Amino acid sequence: MKELEQKILEKGVVLPGDVLKVGAFLNQLIDTDLLKKMAEETANLFSNQKITKVLTIESSGLPFATAVAMRLSVPMIYAKKSASSNMTSDVYYAEVFSYTHGKLFKIRIGKEYISSDDIVLITDDFLASGNALKGLISLVEAAGAKVAGIAIEIEKQYQGGGDELRANGFKVESLAKIASMQEGRIVFCD
Amino acid sequence: MKELEQKILEKGVVLPGDVLKVGAFLNQLIDTDLLKKMAEETANLFSNQKITKVLTIESSGLPFATAVAMRLSVPMIYAKKSASSNMTSDVYYAEVFSYTHGKLFKIRIGKEYISSDDIVLITDDFLASGNALKGLISLVEAAGAKVAGIAIEIEKQYQGGGDELRANGFKVESLAKIASMQEGRIVFCD
Repeated sequence: MKELEQKILEKGVVLPGDVLKVGAFLNQLIDTDLLKKMAEETANLFSNQKITKVLTIESSGLPFATAVAMRLSVPMIYAKKSASSNMTSDVYYAEVFSYTHGKLFKIRIGKEYISSDDIVLITDDFLASGNALKGLISLVEAAGAKVAGIAIEIEKQYQGGGDELRANGFKVESLAKIASMQEGRIVFCD
Repeated sequence: MKELEQKILEKGVVLPGDVLKVGAFLNQLIDTDLLKKMAEETANLFSNQKITKVLTIESSGLPFATAVAMRLSVPMIYAKKSASSNMTSDVYYAEVFSYTHGKLFKIRIGKEYISSDDIVLITDDFLASGNALKGLISLVEAAGAKVAGIAIEIEKQYQGGGDELRANGFKVESLAKIASMQEGRIVFCD
């Protein structure tokens, strides 16, 4: 998506440790005009899929998932990273290793919110190694539901997670795909 | 807002410890049709305020803040509860005590995302004691920006936080206001 790539070049900052900072428009301050266009583009990429729910993981994935689910007029559900007092019923668990936070954590979703009839579009802001997405896929599969595909705002293609998911048969669509990010220079895939 | 009250009566569950579980439509599974209507209602309640940004706190406040900011066509910003590798610049801090998690935590927002020109609508899913909101207000004030008001999905009026904020001069609008929740019976304010 050209407009997202343009924004990344304009306002993204490459930090040491292979971190792409996009706080100025995507995950601390959210440009809602761009967000609407990204949701529209995502809906087009997954038309004809009869999606019944959009699934993401807290918390930086929530704005994109909300916008996509609003556009598709289906419910949005999200996996939590910690237990909370209002999560009482049976839950599905998956383990995810986060490079950003340097630790393993459990993600969970109430069993009552996903069923074997669901056709689920999984969304997230970033795709690098794909660990969070593998956790989300296993939650969907534990419920006996179907994964319609995976929609991502920014994929670091050179980290291989997206291509591994594609090789495993998942439809993965990323609105911006970064081929390399060496010496502060961002190069997109064709 | 009648439709939200109706949904709370239909699908909300009162749990021990004064917890109202609304996971079925508001904060684990999000009913996006209802969400759109709540954003519309909120925009109407704060029309003529020249709002430049919507501010919330991660993570359960994010869907509502996203929908309201999209409706107002302004950016959404959110305070984070922990440091992260892509948050490098100077930040404003506030301390908040969470009854849900039983601990004190620091919330923060990058200084670059809010300025003294901003007129900020603060939003959240729940308002009880008002601690999180006081933290968000202090972030806005630290930036020299103006608080246009506070928009809430569900207020537990009997806990007093909302009325304290109103007494301090803030415009607080809650889409559903609960007067009492004794013995599992939910009673709304008039």
